[in-house]
Amino acid sequence: MTDLTVEVYDTTLRDGAQQEGMNLSVADKMTIAPLLDQLGVGVIEGGWPGAVPKDTEFFQLVAKELSFRNAQFAAFGMTRRAGSTAAADPQVRALLDSEAPILTLVAKSDVRHAERALRVSPDENLRMIEETVAFLVGEGRRVVLDAEHFFDGYRFDPDYSLRCLLAAERAGASTLVLCDTNGGMLPDDVTRIVADVRARTSAQLGMHAHNDSGCAVANSMAAVAAGVTHVQGCVNGYGERTGNADLVAVAANLEIKRGARALAPGGLAESTRIAHAIAEVTNIAPFARQPYVGASAFAHKAGLHASAIKVDPDLYQHTDPARVGNDMRMLVSEMAGRASIELKGKELGYDLSGQGELLSRITERVKHAEAAGYTYDAADASFDLLLRSELGRMPRYWAVEEWRVRVSSTPGDPTDAGAEAVLKLRAGGGARHLVVGEGNGPVNALDHALRTALAKVYPDIERFELTDFKVRIMDASHGTDAITRVLVTTADNETGRSWVTVGVGPNVIEAAWEALTDSLYYGLATHEVAPNP
Amino acid sequence: MTDLTVEVYDTTLRDGAQQEGMNLSVADKMTIAPLLDQLGVGVIEGGWPGAVPKDTEFFQLVAKELSFRNAQFAAFGMTRRAGSTAAADPQVRALLDSEAPILTLVAKSDVRHAERALRVSPDENLRMIEETVAFLVGEGRRVVLDAEHFFDGYRFDPDYSLRCLLAAERAGASTLVLCDTNGGMLPDDVTRIVADVRARTSAQLGMHAHNDSGCAVANSMAAVAAGVTHVQGCVNGYGERTGNADLVAVAANLEIKRGARALAPGGLAESTRIAHAIAEVTNIAPFARQPYVGASAFAHKAGLHASAIKVDPDLYQHTDPARVGNDMRMLVSEMAGRASIELKGKELGYDLSGQGELLSRITERVKHAEAAGYTYDAADASFDLLLRSELGRMPRYWAVEEWRVRVSSTPGDPTDAGAEAVLKLRAGGGARHLVVGEGNGPVNALDHALRTALAKVYPDIERFELTDFKVRIMDASHGTDAITRVLVTTADNETGRSWVTVGVGPNVIEAAWEALTDSLYYGLATHEVAPNP
Repeated sequence: MTDLTVEVYDTTLRDGAQQEGMNLSVADKMTIAPLLDQLGVGVIEGGWPGAVPKDTEFFQLVAKELSFRNAQFAAFGMTRRAGSTAAADPQVRALLDSEAPILTLVAKSDVRHAERALRVSPDENLRMIEETVAFLVGEGRRVVLDAEHFFDGYRFDPDYSLRCLLAAERAGASTLVLCDTNGGMLPDDVTRIVADVRARTSAQLGMHAHNDSGCAVANSMAAVAAGVTHVQGCVNGYGERTGNADLVAVAANLEIKRGARALAPGGLAESTRIAHAIAEVTNIAPFARQPYVGASAFAHKAGLHASAIKVDPDLYQHTDPARVGNDMRMLVSEMAGRASIELKGKELGYDLSGQGELLSRITERVKHAEAAGYTYDAADASFDLLLRSELGRMPRYWAVEEWRVRVSSTPGDPTDAGAEAVLKLRAGGGARHLVVGEGNGPVNALDHALRTALAKVYPDIERFELTDFKVRIMDASHGTDAITRVLVTTADNETGRSWVTVGVGPNVIEAAWEALTDSLYYGLATHEVAPNP
Repeated sequence: MTDLTVEVYDTTLRDGAQQEGMNLSVADKMTIAPLLDQLGVGVIEGGWPGAVPKDTEFFQLVAKELSFRNAQFAAFGMTRRAGSTAAADPQVRALLDSEAPILTLVAKSDVRHAERALRVSPDENLRMIEETVAFLVGEGRRVVLDAEHFFDGYRFDPDYSLRCLLAAERAGASTLVLCDTNGGMLPDDVTRIVADVRARTSAQLGMHAHNDSGCAVANSMAAVAAGVTHVQGCVNGYGERTGNADLVAVAANLEIKRGARALAPGGLAESTRIAHAIAEVTNIAPFARQPYVGASAFAHKAGLHASAIKVDPDLYQHTDPARVGNDMRMLVSEMAGRASIELKGKELGYDLSGQGELLSRITERVKHAEAAGYTYDAADASFDLLLRSELGRMPRYWAVEEWRVRVSSTPGDPTDAGAEAVLKLRAGGGARHLVVGEGNGPVNALDHALRTALAKVYPDIERFELTDFKVRIMDASHGTDAITRVLVTTADNETGRSWVTVGVGPNVIEAAWEALTDSLYYGLATHEVAPNP
């Protein structure tokens, strides 16, 4: 542990919400803000009250209903309009009205942006900065200055960009944040420019990085190494274009790699859960390869290395996944050997050690299945069912006699574009269920039929919801005659847990049916529902 | 332009394929390799012949069927087994048999991995490196040494890790690649360690970075700044766990930010197209926020800045998107499409210049279609049909009255797992065709029915063969109720030309039918077959 403490400033709710496809409601923000507080960030920037009506409402609600354990709350706004006073500017007054203890002012710090985008003289821009900061500091608030386009501006006219910072410092701003607004910097640019600035002011410096050159996290780390102690970013790297710096990756690097204090104690160990919970609210699919918290971040497809990983996992991971609340996972792949299957079994709760013959049989069966097009590296639940069946522990919930699906289409007749499934199965003391299901498409119709047939015998099924459905054609060279692989993701609505099953076959409907029925089987089996076929 | 030239070494087909959920067939690799060559990488690593049977087959096919314009081909393998000779090791011999001009040997360079994972003495590991390299160099091949776990090893025991490199150098290895196998380094670690190594050897140095701390691109750039001239990575940042360094981002940073030579001339400007084309083959959804080539990478939710962006786009983007073949997109403005649609039309042979109203109408239609789930990036043929229809130049080959598909399954009865399609259409002077088609699956059955109905009226159809068929679920949150996108690739057996069409809808069969019929329409229209409906 070093003496370094870095203030982590989250802007998920403001700059993160600029991401394409993201549209946060007030209720969404009310759900996310407490999660950010649990993560242990130092500051939560809530939005732009006065400029965005739903942000004004959000700030009122926060003041009334939320209290944070770790974080302080910040409102974002702009320097006063040209040719006016800060006190008379309604947008500046709205910042005060927000009651946020921290006010973050964005200011032009690239002379070209002052002149061409804001259309004010360079001197008027400096006055706008100094007067707005002074006014808000005079009202007893902490003021953070976001120096927009700072790095581009500094490369064009360093003197002017520095004067913008110094104007804010003179007026009492607590923190001068250097923004790589267009995101094009590389770490060595950042190191050099931050060091220049560091030599010119004694105010706290901050970094705000975007990921356009793929270096947002590294640029944040470089800035800290050069003297910055305030870092802005967004959970899951959300943001406009390529996104802002991924705040969890930055915090994890600071704490784990540099021994700094960043998040409140215990926050980092919650980061995987919180990152995924926030993704649920934003409804943007989590990125499996996301550093530290991604589903694949500690997943090994390591045929060759499996036995070594078993002995010494630290040789194969850059940090203990538990530090960020994630887990090591072994993927069962076509290079699978007995060691990785044993390890995978252990992960799923089956002790296969010392059972050489059983392990060989399972390995053979996996190889055979993978050759036929199955994949278990993304389908843990199907692998679990395979283990149960080899261990003689596969429950029998129902018996299907037959199913049929009919799809039809009459061009120009929108009423005729649906699907209908007929299903015959036995369940519940051998009772025969003959049901029909309708749907947008054939798989949807089969899903409905299956649920109708089983609802009374296994009411738990209502908790299981299909959340994703992927189709891959395996051997493309045969065109429509090819082998199809279907992956189905199912979630338990009560626990939030989800699992993936796989089905394979030349017939896409048949493959989907396999994945579908396996997903329900797995759900029932892991909930220890008693079979009643 | 500086004097710096960096060798770009692509390992998408080997290390990239370690990604969770990726499973490349030989046909997939045969499709991806020429795309990598078009991108202009210096080296394409194809796989591990001898260890992975389908890689052995791939190397044989490459030698027979592919020739590259820019790239050299590399085979990956391991140093010889302990206690043997390189010449007697079948895995080493398989490398020679691959006929690849470049052989890349992975070697342990962390003493802990030698002892605990490989279970050999440190000295035997050094002999394994030196003798294997010497043997392959003696056979006239260029040998690249991938020093696995180099950075972790160097931090633990720098002297041993260096001796591994020097053993390879002595034996004639052309390139010593420092691998951050566990991906935990930050750029300042890389800078320091590469500089140390640079001072100890005169061989070419390389960098192989993984993204576990979110710094793979930055680490690659830091390594180049410290003296490395060979960089390994994967298109789209594919790879195990958090992935390898994103090769396009690294190359773009090298060329655009540092004026270096990296890809072959013209390659970078194709990178957006190629990155997306490769994503179509891997069937892994492209990441919208991917630097440089992502769909959102130059997308502005501009509101406040819209007019300034229009006047002076360079103030708001870190580079011209055309340099990587991407486009600036205004998320609200309709400026978005017109220019690129005009360009795309020109590419397909339609002069749309000066036809403002027509262009607006097409832009509107494309936007509407894209909002519904269509994509024309990968489906030129469907876009061509769209243009024909807007230009009033769409031929009418037949009229479908109705189709129906039936799929059924009786568990345990292998004879009942097929599909049957009934189709009614008019073609050939209004003649009515009532046909039935059978198939493995519903799309296959429809394809057969369609061909049966049309064979006599349009015998050219026999030349058109479906070669690929891809399904993607667009809105995952609705499970089996989601929107489906189907891409169909069709090839002309006589000319070898192929084209892609797209179909969209909640019903996978309906979407496939749309793509299927469009593929035949396009084939007939571009062959200027006279319509005879």
